[in-house]
Amino acid sequence: MKKMIGTRNNYNNINTYANRGMTLEDDLKASNDYYLVNDKAVIYKKPTPITISKVNYPSRVEAVIKEGYFKTPSTTDYNGIYKGKYIDFEAKETKLKTSFPLSNIHAHQINHLKQIYKHGGIGFLIVRFTVINKTFLLPIEVLTDFLVNNTRKSIPLSYFEKNGYIIKDKYNPRVDYLEVLDKIYFGGNV
Amino acid sequence: MKKMIGTRNNYNNINTYANRGMTLEDDLKASNDYYLVNDKAVIYKKPTPITISKVNYPSRVEAVIKEGYFKTPSTTDYNGIYKGKYIDFEAKETKLKTSFPLSNIHAHQINHLKQIYKHGGIGFLIVRFTVINKTFLLPIEVLTDFLVNNTRKSIPLSYFEKNGYIIKDKYNPRVDYLEVLDKIYFGGNV
Repeated sequence: MKKMIGTRNNYNNINTYANRGMTLEDDLKASNDYYLVNDKAVIYKKPTPITISKVNYPSRVEAVIKEGYFKTPSTTDYNGIYKGKYIDFEAKETKLKTSFPLSNIHAHQINHLKQIYKHGGIGFLIVRFTVINKTFLLPIEVLTDFLVNNTRKSIPLSYFEKNGYIIKDKYNPRVDYLEVLDKIYFGGNV
Repeated sequence: MKKMIGTRNNYNNINTYANRGMTLEDDLKASNDYYLVNDKAVIYKKPTPITISKVNYPSRVEAVIKEGYFKTPSTTDYNGIYKGKYIDFEAKETKLKTSFPLSNIHAHQINHLKQIYKHGGIGFLIVRFTVINKTFLLPIEVLTDFLVNNTRKSIPLSYFEKNGYIIKDKYNPRVDYLEVLDKIYFGGNV
């Protein structure tokens, strides 16, 4: 009995948010599936880029990768189309309570989002502060503004609260970022 | 000496186009790089989707994939943005001389392209007949028309010649499909 309680406490200490059992990636997958099935948008996560160095062919139909390495992604994780507009974003979680370290995003991913913006697309970050369970959408134009005016290596939570857009927790879709895009870019009244 | 000639002949027999040393994928990579550097469009090939089942961590910085499998892709290989429009396509080569087998394209890839079209994006196939060295762009709306009116399991070359758009061989970019899109969708006079 004592052991069980101990185990439970330890688990809670390790990662409070994980007790809900859902990562931001899970929530986005479920949300994108919802958008697709309901014909609202076509947005997918890109596969993880890998360099394959050894492949075995045990049968004609099946290839088994025996050696491979993770590559640094050239772009962001998610892209697709919504209301005729090209959509592109990166999603990150942080366990920190008061700021989001910029080391979580590669410089070339920020450049990629800037290029998307320049070509008429919609680019942004989705950042979840897991401990306080708040998820924000930060448009690339807002992030660019921050980077121009700051030398800080992290974005304070207060900056997200002031200049970003909170994505409300919902049942379905769980992370309704299109609702936020409606508000910012499509003149919706949310 | 005799052996060398023999080897060369065999090589020529196996794949004539390969002697040029460039696959359609290479040509598209070079073209997309050209578009990116010249600020014309931001279009990337997606990574190959893989299910990873075993990973070793020989050091803190490096992970080595020891077992993985290729997954069937949910979408197409290429997407991005051009002149504010969402672009999405699949590219295939065939060694056949008179038709392109539809077995080269998954049904869900065709459905994906249809969805893109419905949401206001531009979707198409790029098909290269390697032996005659002709590369065509076939818009999804033209492909859909073919599929509705045919029960054939392959698209004849003549259909590409009549209803598709040839992509001219160029030095740079090698496969200038944006020039074709200009003509079809942006009122360009090519």
